Amino acid sequence: MPPLSAAPAFRALAARVRPVERKVGDAVRAYLDTLTKPPGSLGDLEALAVQLGEITGRAKPEVSPPACIVFAADHGVAAEGVSAFGQDVTAQMVANFAAGGAAINAFAAQINARLEVVNVGVAGDVEAPGVVNARVRRGTASMLRGPAMSREDAAASLNVGVDAAERALDAGCRCLIVGDMGIANTTAASAVLAVLSGQPAARLVGTGTGIDQAKLAHKISVIERAIEARPTDAGSPLDVLASVGGLEIGAMAGAYIAGAARGVPCVVDGFIATVAALLADRLCPEVRGYLIFGHRSAEPGHEVALEVLHAEPLLALGMRLGEGTGAALAFPLLKAACAMLAEMATFGDAGVDDTRS
Amino acid sequence: MPPLSAAPAFRALAARVRPVERKVGDAVRAYLDTLTKPPGSLGDLEALAVQLGEITGRAKPEVSPPACIVFAADHGVAAEGVSAFGQDVTAQMVANFAAGGAAINAFAAQINARLEVVNVGVAGDVEAPGVVNARVRRGTASMLRGPAMSREDAAASLNVGVDAAERALDAGCRCLIVGDMGIANTTAASAVLAVLSGQPAARLVGTGTGIDQAKLAHKISVIERAIEARPTDAGSPLDVLASVGGLEIGAMAGAYIAGAARGVPCVVDGFIATVAALLADRLCPEVRGYLIFGHRSAEPGHEVALEVLHAEPLLALGMRLGEGTGAALAFPLLKAACAMLAEMATFGDAGVDDTRS
Repeated sequence: MPPLSAAPAFRALAARVRPVERKVGDAVRAYLDTLTKPPGSLGDLEALAVQLGEITGRAKPEVSPPACIVFAADHGVAAEGVSAFGQDVTAQMVANFAAGGAAINAFAAQINARLEVVNVGVAGDVEAPGVVNARVRRGTASMLRGPAMSREDAAASLNVGVDAAERALDAGCRCLIVGDMGIANTTAASAVLAVLSGQPAARLVGTGTGIDQAKLAHKISVIERAIEARPTDAGSPLDVLASVGGLEIGAMAGAYIAGAARGVPCVVDGFIATVAALLADRLCPEVRGYLIFGHRSAEPGHEVALEVLHAEPLLALGMRLGEGTGAALAFPLLKAACAMLAEMATFGDAGVDDTRS
Repeated sequence: MPPLSAAPAFRALAARVRPVERKVGDAVRAYLDTLTKPPGSLGDLEALAVQLGEITGRAKPEVSPPACIVFAADHGVAAEGVSAFGQDVTAQMVANFAAGGAAINAFAAQINARLEVVNVGVAGDVEAPGVVNARVRRGTASMLRGPAMSREDAAASLNVGVDAAERALDAGCRCLIVGDMGIANTTAASAVLAVLSGQPAARLVGTGTGIDQAKLAHKISVIERAIEARPTDAGSPLDVLASVGGLEIGAMAGAYIAGAARGVPCVVDGFIATVAALLADRLCPEVRGYLIFGHRSAEPGHEVALEVLHAEPLLALGMRLGEGTGAALAFPLLKAACAMLAEMATFGDAGVDDTRS
């Protein structure tokens, strides 16, 4: 394919992502051992504090207020019968987000997050106040019949994510939580992951929102046939996104790149989000240091995506909803890691004897 | 041993603990499947919501504000060289709690908890404003030289826990988080667990706040010799507590019994807390239904204690601090479970089509 005529926003931003600041991380690590607790006794929370130091470049990082951004889009592959729910549900759920009735609304409120819902490509009409209309197209085409979208549309979806992240960061948010809504998007995410990881679809594909075994076999076959029909170079993430991906997956990847470019931690949600994170990582490897993995999804492909990214999520609650819910539930751990650094006394300050016999 | 002359408070309360309300749990389970998400897609959070319904008897439970209660006491067995820190550190850490410098202070503030520190049996002088003085005795005796304490003192420690829990509940708290501070208390907890579970000490004992392998072998030997010297009937939890236990372990067990008697969820912290929960369970099996396990500790005995109680903790962060820190970090998940029930729309309310193909 020819190169894009003008370098889009996500490419310019990707070039600006700096490596995380390992020296600040080292300073945080050393400081943690002066606090009034046995060294290492706060386990993964200490590693999290170190990473937040590296990401923000501050020895006492802050992550509040967080932003939750939910990107919604439809998938032409839904017409192949790969999902338990019909495609209309995407638009209906967008209306539910706007009305405050979805799980992510409840969890975003718990963490005082700025919540924004972005229509990147819902097929149906969206009549929901407050939803940002950034529709690139009305859903993708079925990956079984041709490319899901053009390379230009894929780039545009990444830019939608960049713009949404920048709105949140300009509004003062210090942490990005990005979620997805899109009927059939586990099919698209599985296909992207199959190409990027080289793993067979059968190892990656799960029951999504809840399909039976016959439908599962069909879902695997759809992905295998789409990938066979259009072999795509795993080294060209934008082509992979265009061939078998989705608009919300591109937007999520764009948001991670923008968050990393601004030195802000990005909490990655479940399967769809981790595949988007992998795309962002392939577009710009420096992004990886800015990613914190919120939870381990029940979707089998998530395990593979986490392995490829060498990621260990904070939570493992058997969830498989999307919307950013698992990342939102993990956010209080980031806040606690910051509070540990900001509020705990050192052995010296507190007059506690740290001589160990 | 002779029976106690008067039935102490914890016995009277234990007799009042009612089974959790399974019917309310069933109603919550059915309601969850009407909410705008695929059935079961919020995983363990759904099971948590069901349990909170059972405990509180309400279809829309509430858990805020929570109480954090830290019980502090010393252990005569510290003189046998089983810990990395000296016994003075217990009193120093109590002063640190009072001054707001410990990890539990930071985490309790994050969840807007009422924090109370109770001196159940610190050996040294405690000069710390705001600490509740309920000292039963100045530390236990070394379990290697004789019983850690009398049966009367053990009962008194349970009653200290009951009183502290009742203060918190009378102040309007809706959830109990109970923590421990006591140098050498992993030795006492391991010994109690060895007797109650019938497992060899070597399987249970870990490095606590951080000891080397030689000291670990010594710690195991101390516990084995104490248990051999005074065989105790595992069917008499009060005798086990008196023989090899600790004052803060008794107080924690008493707090769980009081929480259960008042129909309030109790979030169990790590190893010490889970051994206390096992004691409470043996004193009053109905308590079990009121216990929510906050985190999986890095201390090896915790795994065994969890197995005996058929418990699956919410978090697994490799922590091993105590103080109630792991339970406090898990609390936002309880709040999220409540928010899910209180705030999410049903498919019908939201006009989302839940017909599954």
